[in-house]
Amino acid sequence: MDERIQKQMEFALEIDKEKNIFRQTSLSGHGRKENDAEHAWHMAIMAYLLKEYANEPVDIGRVMIMCLIHDIVEIDAGDTYCYDAEGLKTQKEREDTAKERIFSLLPEDQKEEMVALFDEFEANETPESKFAHAMDNFQPLILNNNNEGSDWAEHGVSAKQVYKRQGKTKDGSDYLYEITDRIIRSNVEKGNLPEE
Amino acid sequence: MDERIQKQMEFALEIDKEKNIFRQTSLSGHGRKENDAEHAWHMAIMAYLLKEYANEPVDIGRVMIMCLIHDIVEIDAGDTYCYDAEGLKTQKEREDTAKERIFSLLPEDQKEEMVALFDEFEANETPESKFAHAMDNFQPLILNNNNEGSDWAEHGVSAKQVYKRQGKTKDGSDYLYEITDRIIRSNVEKGNLPEE
Repeated sequence: MDERIQKQMEFALEIDKEKNIFRQTSLSGHGRKENDAEHAWHMAIMAYLLKEYANEPVDIGRVMIMCLIHDIVEIDAGDTYCYDAEGLKTQKEREDTAKERIFSLLPEDQKEEMVALFDEFEANETPESKFAHAMDNFQPLILNNNNEGSDWAEHGVSAKQVYKRQGKTKDGSDYLYEITDRIIRSNVEKGNLPEE
Repeated sequence: MDERIQKQMEFALEIDKEKNIFRQTSLSGHGRKENDAEHAWHMAIMAYLLKEYANEPVDIGRVMIMCLIHDIVEIDAGDTYCYDAEGLKTQKEREDTAKERIFSLLPEDQKEEMVALFDEFEANETPESKFAHAMDNFQPLILNNNNEGSDWAEHGVSAKQVYKRQGKTKDGSDYLYEITDRIIRSNVEKGNLPEE
């Protein structure tokens, strides 16, 4: 078998492990926690359907592949909960090491392409990466809203913390940030989320 | 809230249920069965990375969204195992009813777009749908190969049946069909898969 396809298949097999990396978000209807692969799938479809709300025109194919691969590093680095202050301190270092190992399974040109997409997402400067980040926030928000904020309650998160995290959505979509704001406020009103 | 975003959010919440639809394919390393959302995520990334092997040039964004949504109907219709002769008889009817219900949650223009993409995938006539079908075959193949053909053994499937199913891969990619053939033969040789 050619070395190129062998490397591509090795990578394809390796990323299967992302299905075993669980997040802190529960599936709708008070389900089990979701994993990174499910989250990425959900984000990519939402990106496609909500692209009309992006602040700037986006290349939706690039947004989707960015959504799909943005958590691959967690195969080695694990999921860092967005409200885990200690974990966040070492997140970049852990993820950089993982990025190098995992994407190096690919042929060199594809490694470069994937690392560039991953870095673009992380830098959050292009219209595509900003919109992908908006999806990274909005997807768990609609699940958590469906579950009456049970994920926030489990971790003792406050509205102030949620606003800080969800603020990035505004960079990608002013409209979806408005919706986000409405969802957060309604959860505060219902007593699902303390103000501070 | 505007009716449009309300409908889009309702659809986004509904498809979360796809994470609970389990397939007959086991995750690598003799893991649990995978679900439709994980399968679709994996297929879409593989499509992006293997697009150079498509028989005809493909719009990769269209291939990816087709991969991502092609199993949404299974939320109502359930997964029909590709070697389940009885289930296959009623599959189309069950899936058509599901397609109408689920995509009708979207605004009309997006319902039409999603149904068209779903139908295009099913018809398997365009370069994009043929390549997406190749991924629908190739993705479980690499997992099953990693598991020494345990999914085939569990269902008493023969190489003849596998060839019949995997034949569609050739329409999307002659090269990936060559690789498929090599993988099937090696499993027959190892005794993982009976000839008939």
